Amino acid sequence: MSQNEPTLKIIPLGGLHEIGKNTCVFEYEDEIVLLDAGLAFPTDGMHGVNIVLPDTTYLRENREKIKGMIVTHGHEDHIGGIAFHLKQFDIPVMYGPRLAMALLEDKLEEAGVADRTELRTVRPRDMVRIGKYFLVEYIRNTHSIADSFSVAIHTPVGVIIHTGDFKFDFTPVDGETFDIQRLAEHGEKGVLCLISDSTNAEVPGHTPSERSVFPNLDRYIGQAEGRVFVTTFASSVHRINMILELAKKHNRLVTVLGRSMLNLIAHARNLGYIKCQDDLFVPLNMANKIPDKDLLVLTTGSQGEPMSALTRIANREHRQIQIREGDTVIFSANPIPGNTIAVVNTIDKLMMQGAKVIYGKEKGIHVSGHGSQEDQKLMLALTKPKFFLPVHGEHRMLVKHAETAQSMGIPAENMVIINNGDVVALTKNSISVAGTVPSGIELVDSSRAGVVHERVLKERQQLAGDGIVTIAASVGWQGQLIAKPEIHLRGVVTSVEKAKLERLVTQALETVVSDRWKEVTHTFGDGEIDVDWTSLRATLEAELRRLLRRELQSNPLLVFLMQTPSEPAPKAAGRMGRAIAGVAS
Amino acid sequence: MSQNEPTLKIIPLGGLHEIGKNTCVFEYEDEIVLLDAGLAFPTDGMHGVNIVLPDTTYLRENREKIKGMIVTHGHEDHIGGIAFHLKQFDIPVMYGPRLAMALLEDKLEEAGVADRTELRTVRPRDMVRIGKYFLVEYIRNTHSIADSFSVAIHTPVGVIIHTGDFKFDFTPVDGETFDIQRLAEHGEKGVLCLISDSTNAEVPGHTPSERSVFPNLDRYIGQAEGRVFVTTFASSVHRINMILELAKKHNRLVTVLGRSMLNLIAHARNLGYIKCQDDLFVPLNMANKIPDKDLLVLTTGSQGEPMSALTRIANREHRQIQIREGDTVIFSANPIPGNTIAVVNTIDKLMMQGAKVIYGKEKGIHVSGHGSQEDQKLMLALTKPKFFLPVHGEHRMLVKHAETAQSMGIPAENMVIINNGDVVALTKNSISVAGTVPSGIELVDSSRAGVVHERVLKERQQLAGDGIVTIAASVGWQGQLIAKPEIHLRGVVTSVEKAKLERLVTQALETVVSDRWKEVTHTFGDGEIDVDWTSLRATLEAELRRLLRRELQSNPLLVFLMQTPSEPAPKAAGRMGRAIAGVAS
Repeated sequence: MSQNEPTLKIIPLGGLHEIGKNTCVFEYEDEIVLLDAGLAFPTDGMHGVNIVLPDTTYLRENREKIKGMIVTHGHEDHIGGIAFHLKQFDIPVMYGPRLAMALLEDKLEEAGVADRTELRTVRPRDMVRIGKYFLVEYIRNTHSIADSFSVAIHTPVGVIIHTGDFKFDFTPVDGETFDIQRLAEHGEKGVLCLISDSTNAEVPGHTPSERSVFPNLDRYIGQAEGRVFVTTFASSVHRINMILELAKKHNRLVTVLGRSMLNLIAHARNLGYIKCQDDLFVPLNMANKIPDKDLLVLTTGSQGEPMSALTRIANREHRQIQIREGDTVIFSANPIPGNTIAVVNTIDKLMMQGAKVIYGKEKGIHVSGHGSQEDQKLMLALTKPKFFLPVHGEHRMLVKHAETAQSMGIPAENMVIINNGDVVALTKNSISVAGTVPSGIELVDSSRAGVVHERVLKERQQLAGDGIVTIAASVGWQGQLIAKPEIHLRGVVTSVEKAKLERLVTQALETVVSDRWKEVTHTFGDGEIDVDWTSLRATLEAELRRLLRRELQSNPLLVFLMQTPSEPAPKAAGRMGRAIAGVAS
Repeated sequence: MSQNEPTLKIIPLGGLHEIGKNTCVFEYEDEIVLLDAGLAFPTDGMHGVNIVLPDTTYLRENREKIKGMIVTHGHEDHIGGIAFHLKQFDIPVMYGPRLAMALLEDKLEEAGVADRTELRTVRPRDMVRIGKYFLVEYIRNTHSIADSFSVAIHTPVGVIIHTGDFKFDFTPVDGETFDIQRLAEHGEKGVLCLISDSTNAEVPGHTPSERSVFPNLDRYIGQAEGRVFVTTFASSVHRINMILELAKKHNRLVTVLGRSMLNLIAHARNLGYIKCQDDLFVPLNMANKIPDKDLLVLTTGSQGEPMSALTRIANREHRQIQIREGDTVIFSANPIPGNTIAVVNTIDKLMMQGAKVIYGKEKGIHVSGHGSQEDQKLMLALTKPKFFLPVHGEHRMLVKHAETAQSMGIPAENMVIINNGDVVALTKNSISVAGTVPSGIELVDSSRAGVVHERVLKERQQLAGDGIVTIAASVGWQGQLIAKPEIHLRGVVTSVEKAKLERLVTQALETVVSDRWKEVTHTFGDGEIDVDWTSLRATLEAELRRLLRRELQSNPLLVFLMQTPSEPAPKAAGRMGRAIAGVAS
């Protein structure tokens, strides 16, 4: 590209090489528009972290450029980061579909940042202008949550189509069909770049319609003789709709468990995405009074999440509901990689308590909300883009998606496979990576007390793996140990006896102090003594660390507390003879 | 069963409701014979644990009954626990196949317990007597490791067939076919009970022959233009054999990475299970001198194990090997549930460095070593057992396997689905669960320093989730704080500033000491003071814990060190006035 050619920068801060925290920056001259801002969940080793956010350094540093945000749909991996970001920088206005905006409003209010932005609701084919350079057109798509959109962004370099999350569901549960006419029209007029969902790029074929699970759920619910428990993602509006319809068909009242599920159902009913009567529902405290064959429990926990209702039931930790012989539990969701063990453990526990558990792909009770290879091809065929940018997937999925695009005739040089933080430079004639911006992650602690810094995470990993040893000792003015050192082990595995360890620590301390005492003390002419406690402490600490590594055959954290005399040095006269405070290790 | 009827007890101590640590006890009157003793690998949350063993309380308490052990094959989940157990109790003799015995011998020598038992090698159709009551017949089977066996155990109640791990591979790589004639003969004569491998009870159909991967590996290795890396399980002798054969066919020299892989290949070559010339191999330090198209690297790491060679290469942490454009990496193994994320992360990293990575089920480069439903049916059909005991699998697999057996006409009352530690009572006429023995798990720390107790694991979990706070304070004889309390935070996330925390801690300590000072001190007639430091410390500690929970919004471990005066109480005369030492928290 020439230096002076008008250039649109596209910078995904999240959503690549991972599932989750989708966050995309569109930047033209002095204006930035964001598309979605999601969160991800922690992986192993991120101890005590429960939310992962993208690094927002770039946005903080360019806060004055931010003109607004495009929200495509209401899933956590697309809207879950917004409340956190609004604490750091302003986003003047956000446009999004009704359901997403209703869910978002709750989040912003809970976080106390509702006044930092303006939420505006859009409808299919709405066009909204953000800043001087961006005209955004909302195109209805089909996905596992209701009210989901792709967008066509008209920019000075051309039209960009961002698919959002999508599949082509030609028989959607809510009857709201994918607006493929608009996609086709853009394809006809000319799309500069397609930015497309790569989640299922490795899966051949076409993702079945959400409706395909209906007859299977119908059969399993119909066959059940006792209570029926159904678990699915709290955000799967269409699935929940079908389950409620089937409950009604089979004359079962519904008890809903799990805050996120209750919340979604309330909003979706309010906005008309779920249509059912109030008297279909029965509160939890009444559920035990309903005959087994008349009850359906709709619950969170399809991923074996430790605190979810179903997991607590499986662990016999739920106060009001216990599994009993005759219950049927239907897992209407596949485990996300990483959750498999938690899910199968939950299944086993439910079975051991007498439940019949319906699970597994071959049962036909779950389909993905993301399009497979044939859906991805149809998207490419409809939009006929000049350039192609696969997003929303791990590296190998992006590679596969790019191969799919190449198989349809888009040249390899017209696409880039990028990392989070890569700056894609798009002109009328070229696509390339032109630099990077900071793109790490920020980890948020469960207590929400704040961000978990790298150092704290490292400490937690060491604590988890090897534990911690606390040693307290007092050294007096004559270089003698005052009292026996105190030793505490936490999370440390050892066959070494405490008494032996105390003896070794005492010996080590005495040896080091006696070896180094001359070096670290200075006796003045008047007999006053000055001690370089800092240096002595450092040597003692290093020696203790060595000793622990050797004796415990592991590498626990060490907290070494050295008390120095609080009284002035003996024979102190005019000079300052107090201890130099030991520096915290 | 009648009380006096001869009864065989079968007690699986591991291998149920989990994959791994297969350990089965056969007990008749005063004799115990063990079948296998494996280990398992830790799951999430078992911080710093790297080996999981079954609780062996029952064996320790009945050590004098143990007459010997049957080893079926050389996999870690069948022999990996033996060395640990031999430190606790003797097993006079072990019978097993040559390869398993060679691998086991190494383990016992490394652990220094080789002299605690006698290893005896068996061949197909060998009969060995163990104790008075057990006559064991070794029946060749087919599995992913060479030299694998099922056994027919002749006992006073009847013949028990234990399948070991098996599939029916009619075209085994080593030509050693499953001795189904012996199984059929037992079926004809009468098998009292079949104890059978349930690993793939949920998988329909027949597990393909190991040989079916050969043409696919051939194609991928043949197509590669640069270096080829192949990773598989270190114990998959047949797979390794085929990979070596293909290396030769495609004129590639082989470098082997990973201690377990090197070890297995050495033994397998030694015993003739792997046949190839010495000059096929090239050591690692020579590998960089071989042209890319002439090299094949056979490596561990197919499960994304953090310390394995391939994972270190993917992380750019391997000193001698770096991935470069043109390399092909073949994953000839499926991820075991729980390892999925580690594996796909490794794949992504290799791809980002330019490697072409061949992975995934549809490539036909891996098959399971365990039979699927049709194999399990054939086993039932051949042996025609009266009673059936599904083992080696998680609960839902056992349930499924039992359903399969019922579909073939074995009545439900002739089978039991059991837990680890259940005592199965088998007579000529009945099978039932007659009690339980201790069956928890023992966790072994990575340092091998010893067993990780439940308390230590709980501490590590708390440390990992919330960190630790160490607070040291000194209280003097007048109930005054001597010097400022010292506070150390490790692994703690907080937005509270250190100075504020110190102020709050100081205030809390001062308040508690002043509130409680009267209660905890006793002034004698002679003016001497006695202080109940233990009680004071307990109150202080409880108060500090409350303060931390409130201020940090989390629940870190607390180590509270309280120094009490080392000098006698003021005005001390004849009485003991020294501090009562504070009890360690």
